[in-house]
Amino acid sequence: MRCVILGGAGFLGHHIGRAMAEDGAEVWSVDRALPAPGSAPWLAGELQADALDLGSWWDAVGGADVIVHLASSSVPATATEDPIQDVQANLVGTLRLVQELRKRDARPRLLYASSGGAVYGRPQFVPLAETHPAMPMGAYGATKLAIEHHLRIEEALHGLPSRILRLSNPYGEWQQPYGVQGVIAVFAHRALRGQPVDVWGDGSVVRDFVYAADVGSAFVRAARHEGETRTFNIGGGSGHSVNDIIQTLEQLLGKPVERRIFPARPFDPPVNVLDIQRAKDELLWAPTTAFDDGMAMAVQWLRTIS
Amino acid sequence: MRCVILGGAGFLGHHIGRAMAEDGAEVWSVDRALPAPGSAPWLAGELQADALDLGSWWDAVGGADVIVHLASSSVPATATEDPIQDVQANLVGTLRLVQELRKRDARPRLLYASSGGAVYGRPQFVPLAETHPAMPMGAYGATKLAIEHHLRIEEALHGLPSRILRLSNPYGEWQQPYGVQGVIAVFAHRALRGQPVDVWGDGSVVRDFVYAADVGSAFVRAARHEGETRTFNIGGGSGHSVNDIIQTLEQLLGKPVERRIFPARPFDPPVNVLDIQRAKDELLWAPTTAFDDGMAMAVQWLRTIS
Repeated sequence: MRCVILGGAGFLGHHIGRAMAEDGAEVWSVDRALPAPGSAPWLAGELQADALDLGSWWDAVGGADVIVHLASSSVPATATEDPIQDVQANLVGTLRLVQELRKRDARPRLLYASSGGAVYGRPQFVPLAETHPAMPMGAYGATKLAIEHHLRIEEALHGLPSRILRLSNPYGEWQQPYGVQGVIAVFAHRALRGQPVDVWGDGSVVRDFVYAADVGSAFVRAARHEGETRTFNIGGGSGHSVNDIIQTLEQLLGKPVERRIFPARPFDPPVNVLDIQRAKDELLWAPTTAFDDGMAMAVQWLRTIS
Repeated sequence: MRCVILGGAGFLGHHIGRAMAEDGAEVWSVDRALPAPGSAPWLAGELQADALDLGSWWDAVGGADVIVHLASSSVPATATEDPIQDVQANLVGTLRLVQELRKRDARPRLLYASSGGAVYGRPQFVPLAETHPAMPMGAYGATKLAIEHHLRIEEALHGLPSRILRLSNPYGEWQQPYGVQGVIAVFAHRALRGQPVDVWGDGSVVRDFVYAADVGSAFVRAARHEGETRTFNIGGGSGHSVNDIIQTLEQLLGKPVERRIFPARPFDPPVNVLDIQRAKDELLWAPTTAFDDGMAMAVQWLRTIS
């Protein structure tokens, strides 16, 4: 089985690629960037290309049985700032990819990384099941949701098989601490350097964190899934507060972590946790990495770059 | 109150414009086309322009208190054929309009004509309430739904007030019988000329038809609505089968209508009717035109062009 990971050079691509390779797949990364040298010895190859431009990689790789679609040019903040660019790059880009597959009469399984944190919007109940209304509160989630719909329609009309994985907040080795996403990596990196971490409100806000290697195993299961269901929440199975993260960091580092307190942000829902029962039942998947263990591995990796 | 109708030269624009003018608004049409000469004496003016390009009309019209957004460059069939073009013209076009309003710090009320026939997808229950899952089965509905989400987000983030009207199948005077939409106009036009009408299956398929002047009064109510609800089904209040349409036509014409029977299409849901209770409760709106009366007016108008 040949598995091509679009956006494979990043943090999630690393973990999903390794899991796919361990499952026996021939794994390629197609990304504008190349993976860090020596970081992914399991790759059959890597191509530096526009991942959503099928023509730039399909023949070079020899086609695909499974496409893992992680390619995204935006994060929530940039999508809010420029929704048109977000639509052009991500929605139109994905529609082009799908159209090129159709032209080639190719029907690989497409696994799409959607966002459990963005597509539902403000929780009407927690944990959030896949049946919770999808009312995204930002352009990032609106685009993810539109892509989900178009993939479902493409399968119904033209037979391109797909699975949607709505991820919570992945964390783990290779997550870069310099961006605006990834609170665990950002906090751990700052704490390792003796810098304070920024907390909005009293730190009681609860979010869903999933260790990235567990996300990798979820994609392996989704690649082999045979049922009728198309959309799965992939989360850590329980929530952790900002204070939990800081306390775990303090234990791992053996020293206190300084906090800079800012006013609570009214648009932050107090709790956002995914219900992963459907993935348990139908993908026979569950996260296996305890939060403390995952954090320890993330911190250990960050020590190598801090 | 100045009301600008984007896509105002068409069939629906005619009825909504008349209703808004009767309610006291100064009504403008902005459309690539001009209304038929003399057809809309209530208009304060009409502009031939790209309606979603705000810069091409905003200053000329003097701004707007209410924008009725009917501008659409696609129908379900063309959107399915070219989803990228549908996204570019309609979703990106609407995002550009909204962005231009934000740049001008202008916050007119935006009334968006969405599609009750397209955004829900295959009915899980009928009549379809606004809370029915939105699972569009084509690109046309996916784009309408994405626009709905972006308008909701724009209001939450930047205060542009909007209302979404999910219309069923409007019919009435000025609906052209030459297109692929508007079964009542198409059937009536053919029957008036003594031509057979095309029926897929046994004619028992039930759809929701709403007389266009009733759609006009719904937009008048939505322009004045003060509640928190943003999305309203606007339908005829009950369903009518294809056979109902033909029988009503036969009564109006006083002669039999010939049918050409084709095999039933498996993707046609047997019943698709909107629940309009929310519009009754919150917009204090209900359709007031009986199906027979609306059909009689549509047929009477078609006689003038047949």
